[in-house]
Amino acid sequence: MTSVITLLTDYGLEDGYVAACHGVIAKMAPSARVIDVCHIVPSGDVRRGAAILAQTIPYLPSGVHIGAVDPGAGGARRAVAVEAGGRVFVGPDNGLLSWAIHASGGARAAYEIRNEEHFLHPVSPTFHGRDVFAPVAARLWGGLDPAELGPAVPLDRLVSLPEPTSVLREGAVEGEVVSVDGYGNTQLSIAAGDLEALGVRVGDTIGVMLGRRRLSMPYRETYAAVAPGELVAFADSAGLIAFAVHCGDAAQRLGLPPGAHVRLSPSG
Amino acid sequence: MTSVITLLTDYGLEDGYVAACHGVIAKMAPSARVIDVCHIVPSGDVRRGAAILAQTIPYLPSGVHIGAVDPGAGGARRAVAVEAGGRVFVGPDNGLLSWAIHASGGARAAYEIRNEEHFLHPVSPTFHGRDVFAPVAARLWGGLDPAELGPAVPLDRLVSLPEPTSVLREGAVEGEVVSVDGYGNTQLSIAAGDLEALGVRVGDTIGVMLGRRRLSMPYRETYAAVAPGELVAFADSAGLIAFAVHCGDAAQRLGLPPGAHVRLSPSG
Amino acid sequence: MTSVITLLTDYGLEDGYVAACHGVIAKMAPSARVIDVCHIVPSGDVRRGAAILAQTIPYLPSGVHIGAVDPGAGGARRAVAVEAGGRVFVGPDNGLLSWAIHASGGARAAYEIRNEEHFLHPVSPTFHGRDVFAPVAARLWGGLDPAELGPAVPLDRLVSLPEPTSVLREGAVEGEVVSVDGYGNTQLSIAAGDLEALGVRVGDTIGVMLGRRRLSMPYRETYAAVAPGELVAFADSAGLIAFAVHCGDAAQRLGLPPGAHVRLSPSG
Repeated sequence: MTSVITLLTDYGLEDGYVAACHGVIAKMAPSARVIDVCHIVPSGDVRRGAAILAQTIPYLPSGVHIGAVDPGAGGARRAVAVEAGGRVFVGPDNGLLSWAIHASGGARAAYEIRNEEHFLHPVSPTFHGRDVFAPVAARLWGGLDPAELGPAVPLDRLVSLPEPTSVLREGAVEGEVVSVDGYGNTQLSIAAGDLEALGVRVGDTIGVMLGRRRLSMPYRETYAAVAPGELVAFADSAGLIAFAVHCGDAAQRLGLPPGAHVRLSPSG
Repeated sequence: MTSVITLLTDYGLEDGYVAACHGVIAKMAPSARVIDVCHIVPSGDVRRGAAILAQTIPYLPSGVHIGAVDPGAGGARRAVAVEAGGRVFVGPDNGLLSWAIHASGGARAAYEIRNEEHFLHPVSPTFHGRDVFAPVAARLWGGLDPAELGPAVPLDRLVSLPEPTSVLREGAVEGEVVSVDGYGNTQLSIAAGDLEALGVRVGDTIGVMLGRRRLSMPYRETYAAVAPGELVAFADSAGLIAFAVHCGDAAQRLGLPPGAHVRLSPSG
Repeated sequence: MTSVITLLTDYGLEDGYVAACHGVIAKMAPSARVIDVCHIVPSGDVRRGAAILAQTIPYLPSGVHIGAVDPGAGGARRAVAVEAGGRVFVGPDNGLLSWAIHASGGARAAYEIRNEEHFLHPVSPTFHGRDVFAPVAARLWGGLDPAELGPAVPLDRLVSLPEPTSVLREGAVEGEVVSVDGYGNTQLSIAAGDLEALGVRVGDTIGVMLGRRRLSMPYRETYAAVAPGELVAFADSAGLIAFAVHCGDAAQRLGLPPGAHVRLSPSG
């Protein structure tokens, strides 16, 4: 069986928080394989967590996928288990899971996690990862029907983050910065196909508008195609256009935060 | 079998040190499940390591628990294996294990680790985690009787860190900062029950004395109950009072290091 | 079976990149045990990656060992699978694997990884760890003959990093800084045996020349043998001479980068 349990959190690595989740799972589902997706999502950054989970999920075996970036833990937000594409996603209903659910083909069913029989007690109001999500995930991995967790949630009531979008307009494509990875590579919401629809080919130079700044940048197959220290645009490992500096940090160089507006055009 | 081997160290993640320990265990106990508790305990910070281990241990399956925060490695300090609550703790006898042993019900037996037959050779004087603790833990996991490791250590001779304490005095409760987590949440030695014994209820405001500074703070079920950027006191996931800033860093805001004296009282 | 798959990369922990590799392996080789060697090798630092892998490999079970520190990914560099000492190393042919291969007894056979049948498709030009190395390693772990991957590479054509060396000259031993670990301990290319060949014994004081600076330093069994804050030379866990500051950071104190020239002599 290749079913796994995966964990994405903003708990950081300085504490035993992640280990407590592993421990709870190991007690309840001793033979489950657990894969850590990421634990240093910036604290409370739901959007960054959503991007990491969505871009990793196609490469993970099917299983139960916990997401715990949950600035509203202990508040009014709902906890949910969502079935999509043969997977079950478990976490807060704050949009964190929404892009991964979309990448898995869309939600098929969703349940509010309310049945306390499957929780650890007492439930810490600030550590649902350990006391709610981990034990519930272990039970689901062991065969528990998600419908046992609580009432069904209408699929159109699940919280979704707005998908980063791009638009073709007047011979250019506009989008935004989706995320910045650990190398400083700056990923846009613009797919490689959008750029190619404008006639841009690998080897060309493209025009880049960042607010009022105008740059031109080589469009290459990979950052290794330019000299160290040079800016380059390329199609990244998720099929999206990204800016990089070969052996450097493009986000720092360009000063581009997630959400910043970007416009790309064939160079004239 | 849910018995595991767990690892807590200050080895950091920049090197292959943790992997060497995993490798030694995987060679000697290939079917053992290994859980990493934490590897970025601040270098040599025995007290912080002790706090992380003690607060995580209730959530870990029983097994063999290695602690290697060991500024005296290669010096005169003793290495020990301590049985407590169906677990075996392995590490330096410098207090690192003491709070976790206490949290597991207290030591039942202790042995000095001296029988070199179970070590890797040559033993590096500075890397007992790899050459002593990991192979000994693998053998214990495989059924070795701890008494085979060396002479019994009288339980009252084991090094213990002073337990952080709190005291009720003149209508207030006094304690200290135990530790600061990766979010900057500042955990006190004061249990939620102590505060409630003074008549404080969730929803109240409390008086906080930090040295000569006097603040008042809302006491809530969770940090999410206050607006982003606001200070709050709450009962954390270990049942202890902690200060937090919602979406912020309380330790930085308050400038409170571990050991700092704190006095809490009902407001008004 | 104790055969494992190990992973060394410079992918960092801020993203889902490492998890994607784990996921690909878990899908194709669900029962393989995976050990993370290190994922925060400084970006593109082939030499540091090589040092970590070579010093960890003796402690890892035999298996398939992926190295992905690959600043030339997507460029002209070759990908290889190299058999050495009952292990198979998989990665770019840029020298990253060379010291570990040497530490495993030298290459016995090498093959270029070119047979795309074993890759994930489409292959991202910038993420060979996920799309090439991970699936190829999973197949090798499952029994695939490395010769199936592509044409044999003559062993003398494999890229090797120059081995850090030391030389005995005029009553002194000269070498260089090999690497700096997470504690700031500064490891030299000088083996403990070289120093002892000069008549230096533990307990002695040695003369240290760093460029034009001349220091003297105690030579002890471990850094714990000197007072906190003091410099010391000792034989580290790899059998090499290292400088440390007890409870401090020797690299910072001495300002010594990898590659810096060092000369040690008996104190006069």
